Formats: sequence, structure tokens, C-alpha cells
Amino acid sequence: MDTKLRELFIDQLKDMYDAEHRILEALPSKIEAAESENLKTGLEEHLTETRAQIQRLERIFEIIEVEPERSACQATKGLIKEAKELLGDFEGSSANDAAIICAAQKVEHYEIATYGCLCSWSQRMKLDEAYELLEMSLTEEKRANDLLSKAAITEANEAANV
Amino acid sequence: MDTKLRELFIDQLKDMYDAEHRILEALPSKIEAAESENLKTGLEEHLTETRAQIQRLERIFEIIEVEPERSACQATKGLIKEAKELLGDFEGSSANDAAIICAAQKVEHYEIATYGCLCSWSQRMKLDEAYELLEMSLTEEKRANDLLSKAAITEANEAANV
Repeated sequence: MDTKLRELFIDQLKDMYDAEHRILEALPSKIEAAESENLKTGLEEHLTETRAQIQRLERIFEIIEVEPERSACQATKGLIKEAKELLGDFEGSSANDAAIICAAQKVEHYEIATYGCLCSWSQRMKLDEAYELLEMSLTEEKRANDLLSKAAITEANEAANV
Repeated sequence: MDTKLRELFIDQLKDMYDAEHRILEALPSKIEAAESENLKTGLEEHLTETRAQIQRLERIFEIIEVEPERSACQATKGLIKEAKELLGDFEGSSANDAAIICAAQKVEHYEIATYGCLCSWSQRMKLDEAYELLEMSLTEEKRANDLLSKAAITEANEAANV
């Protein structure tokens, strides 16, 4: 076992554990602000997924026998600060949903990058159950991002027909 | 022309203009810290691409007749702060390159998300030349991210053979 890789894995697990909690906290304001029902539903579903992702992270901490702990994720802090500004600036305007989709996709991409690394490291360390759980979350994040891309197209078409 | 969408487009253009400058500044320390030649070369190529991407953004500002201006990108600030900590913690260890790849992929994904939105908005506003330039940068970011994923596999194989 490469102890430094294990250390990196734990470091990013704690980063993601913090990130998911911050995302869980930030999602309701995006849902509330969303105008299109389609977007609202997509974000609501992702809120449920986020709760399950936190539980998966807790199970992984258990597998590797490490106490679940949040380590302040600077990137997510920045992403959420930026999202708040963006949502405030475009609230109720014709670009309201476009701004929400943009902010949400940035978060999804952060999660895709981190879960992608965690997946490959868990595979390398032969942590089979952890790998399966991380792969599940990675697939959900990719799907959530695809749904946001589709919501952006619908939103654009609706705006064109107004 | 949807003036609010144009405003959102300019807002994210300024965000990206700032992000690219910060990335340009942060890349040399990642290149210096990289141990594998493969990773070093990949990051060096991306440094050249980043310079071209800044020029493309400047051309887009010119097209839409807006003065190029950086607007502090909170997310990139957070990403770079996190990368510095990560690189410091794993410097010279067996997880050195894995940590660099992870930090770099997070940045790539941020850029993919933002360029993706800018692309779709420019297309919607029928800004053909801007769209082409943004698409070029988006393709480069996706390629850079794929190269990092490949570098991670090479790095893992080399570590397994040590």
C-alpha cells in the first residue's frame, strides 16, 4: 500500500465531504430561484442525490477506518460565493435560468474532477467497495451535468419563442 | 438581442479573462514540481495554449466592443489556493504527480464548464466569430483534461512497477 497515495485519497475525501455539505446547503436557493419547472425538478433530484453521496462518503470513511471529517474546500467556497453573486445579479431577469445553469454546471464539473481522481486512486489501491460507491457518485454528477446542458437548450428555445 | 443574456455573457467573459491570467501565473509552479517528463510536457503545452486563450478572449471583447477587464474569479482563486496546499503537502512524495494531476484537472473542469456556457450563449446571440474562438478554447481544455487522465494512468503504471 502506497501510504502517500492513501494520504492523498483521505485528503480529497475530506475535501469532497466538505464540498458536498456546502452544495447541499446552497442547492435550495438555486431551486427556489429557478423559473423553469424542468430546471427546478432537475435540481431537486440532485438535492436527493447529494444526500446519498454524503452517505456514500461516510461509508468509505468507515471502510478505510478513518473518522469522517470535513476539510474546508476552498474551491467550493469560491464557487458558492460566485454563484450567489451571479444569482443576485440576474434574479428575475430573462437570463435568470441561464445564470443558475451556469453556476450549477461549474459545481458539477468540480465534483466530476474530484470524484474522477478518487475513483482512479481507489481502483489503484484495490478498494473495491469504495471504487463502486465513488463510481456511482461520478455517474450521477455526469448525468446531472448532462441534464443541465439539456435544460440550457430548452431554456434557449423557450426564450427564442417568447 | 437579449440585453440580459449579453450582460451575463460579458460577466462570464470577464470572469474567464481573470481566471486565465491566474492559471497562467500558477502553471509554472506545477510544471516545475512535476516529476514525470510526460506530465511536464503536457503542462508546458497547456501554458502555450493558455496564452492563446487569453488572446482569443481579447478578440471577443473587441468583437462585442467592450473593454477587456478582469473580474476577480472567486472559484479560480479557491482552486489555486487549494492546489498550492496540495502541492506543498505531497511535494517530492510518491503521490507528487497524482496530486498535481488532480489539482490541474479541477482547473480544467472549471474552464470546460465556463467555456461551455460561453459557447452556447454566443451561438444563441449569433456571435459567429466569438463562438468559433470559444469552441477552439473549449476543445483545447477538453483535450488537456484527457491528457491529464492519460498521464494519471501512466503514472499509476509506473508506480506499480517500482
